[in-house]
Amino acid sequence: MFKIRSLVSALMLAGSVSVASAWEALPTAAPEPADNPSSEAKIELGQILYHDPRLSSTGTVSCASCHNTMLGGEDNRPNAMGVHGQTGGRSAPTVWNAAFSKVQFWDGRAATLEDQAAGPVTNPIEMGMKSWDDVVARLKAIDGYQELFESAFGKDSITKENATKAIAAYERTLITPNSPYDKYVKGDESALTAQQIRGMQKFEEVGCTSCHSGPAFNGEGAFHKFPVADNGYFEAQHHFKKDKGLAEVSKNPADEHLWKVPTLRNIALTAPYFHNGSVKSLESAVEVMAKLQLGKDLSKEETADIVAFLKALTGEFPRQKMPVLPGTHGTTLN
Amino acid sequence: MFKIRSLVSALMLAGSVSVASAWEALPTAAPEPADNPSSEAKIELGQILYHDPRLSSTGTVSCASCHNTMLGGEDNRPNAMGVHGQTGGRSAPTVWNAAFSKVQFWDGRAATLEDQAAGPVTNPIEMGMKSWDDVVARLKAIDGYQELFESAFGKDSITKENATKAIAAYERTLITPNSPYDKYVKGDESALTAQQIRGMQKFEEVGCTSCHSGPAFNGEGAFHKFPVADNGYFEAQHHFKKDKGLAEVSKNPADEHLWKVPTLRNIALTAPYFHNGSVKSLESAVEVMAKLQLGKDLSKEETADIVAFLKALTGEFPRQKMPVLPGTHGTTLN
Repeated sequence: MFKIRSLVSALMLAGSVSVASAWEALPTAAPEPADNPSSEAKIELGQILYHDPRLSSTGTVSCASCHNTMLGGEDNRPNAMGVHGQTGGRSAPTVWNAAFSKVQFWDGRAATLEDQAAGPVTNPIEMGMKSWDDVVARLKAIDGYQELFESAFGKDSITKENATKAIAAYERTLITPNSPYDKYVKGDESALTAQQIRGMQKFEEVGCTSCHSGPAFNGEGAFHKFPVADNGYFEAQHHFKKDKGLAEVSKNPADEHLWKVPTLRNIALTAPYFHNGSVKSLESAVEVMAKLQLGKDLSKEETADIVAFLKALTGEFPRQKMPVLPGTHGTTLN
Repeated sequence: MFKIRSLVSALMLAGSVSVASAWEALPTAAPEPADNPSSEAKIELGQILYHDPRLSSTGTVSCASCHNTMLGGEDNRPNAMGVHGQTGGRSAPTVWNAAFSKVQFWDGRAATLEDQAAGPVTNPIEMGMKSWDDVVARLKAIDGYQELFESAFGKDSITKENATKAIAAYERTLITPNSPYDKYVKGDESALTAQQIRGMQKFEEVGCTSCHSGPAFNGEGAFHKFPVADNGYFEAQHHFKKDKGLAEVSKNPADEHLWKVPTLRNIALTAPYFHNGSVKSLESAVEVMAKLQLGKDLSKEETADIVAFLKALTGEFPRQKMPVLPGTHGTTLN
């Protein structure tokens, strides 16, 4: 553990002494994997699947229920609520700009959006389907899905693999460009307030950019230990260490409390904060991070400046068409 | 009770001997009440409120959760599922074309869409808010709502009354015209198949039109007793009489088993059927209605013809823009 902490500290120092970060605007298109090139038909199907609650055992929970595309890409809850009102210990990460991370889920256990999309559907406390075979059977019973899959993937193509590919293709379109920060970085000096510019400088100076780097402020898929410092005060309030992060899956002690670096894009919209949603305000989140990860006590003004900067990371949300889900014809689904 | 049944039977006879029903196409605009004229700003606000799960205690259930505007206006479940996975005894009625009924809820206890919209928000097993004061406080805490209400109703206008007016104004736009039936009635003889035309004639001949009349096939807000006939076989299967309908609210024995006549528009999309969602297929629903309400045993062919006709009542669903819900800024809601 000490070794990891030293490494982290070294990285932070490197961050804090660099003269200027490579501030980058958000790309307007996400990279596509070679085995899942996008198409209009795939994106349309993916949007429909993403919003279809019939992909859950009760017919009440869709991907969008917890990763709300009408909001900040999540549910503003401490932890997500799945079928039968069940909750787990983790907060739903935002789907907006998820395409710019090389790892998915809080613990980064999925390498691709395609892999991620397969998970919640059969998680008993999320969407609760018994198996993907059951999901495929349900989709096959809806005529409209036969046609939509055919347009996207060819004849008789309703499979788990194609469903998750379509969802991932849709998610790659969920990008929020043109935040005040992006406009500023592209040369519009009036896009940020004086306080936001101070906050931007402070954000770099205290070392936030050592992890929250790149255009999505997520290290582009880096893992990091959280919390780095032991702090009884914060731990008693927030119980951050109760969840062992990646080690919960890998069972490898070296992975204890390792987490994906989450994006800070649209962070103002996604309270409450952290993997367990235990911190209610962005002010508190900044104080917690400065103390636990960087060993720093920020002044009230410094915190306010950084928060003002983070609010400048709220982008423009594309106006989507609402999908029309294919209906069943005169009968219920099993 | 006998008196009501006699009246109902008389109405049915009147229906079944009429030479031809006044077959009417669905209007493309709904009537507006004098105290709530529509406006673009009201409709926009209403669409946002309708889709905002933060109007529920858990932040997980919006109007759209049970009355899904991406589907047939309901949830394809036997009974609706509210906060914490709770269920009641009734099936969610469709929101599509609800503006063409003069009474709302299965038991018709609300006279307007405005009154209806106020109900589920504070129903403990639906959206579970403690009071409308709490809802208003939550809306006031979201800057974007201040602006949206101001555009629709003027300054400092976040109230229960205005919220339900906006939702009702939005619901009045949820109309599905141009079904094959509508095209046929307007003169396109190729819009219905021969079987559907036979079904349309049979639908009238057996007496369905005595209650399911008017352009929305809902008697435009009529009440009716269901079931009319006592039938141990169906009752043992479906428990229709367990719920006393309007009498559950009015406590008046004369209202026992009185229900709003539900619309048949888009009926193919809204399985399962009846107030308690106990009938899984449209075929069964037609058989049950013929037997219990009209005392008739239909042949397999007659049932199939009527079902084919009912499928011709599926209209065109307008492509809506997905609303962008106003966000909280760096903090959770209470």
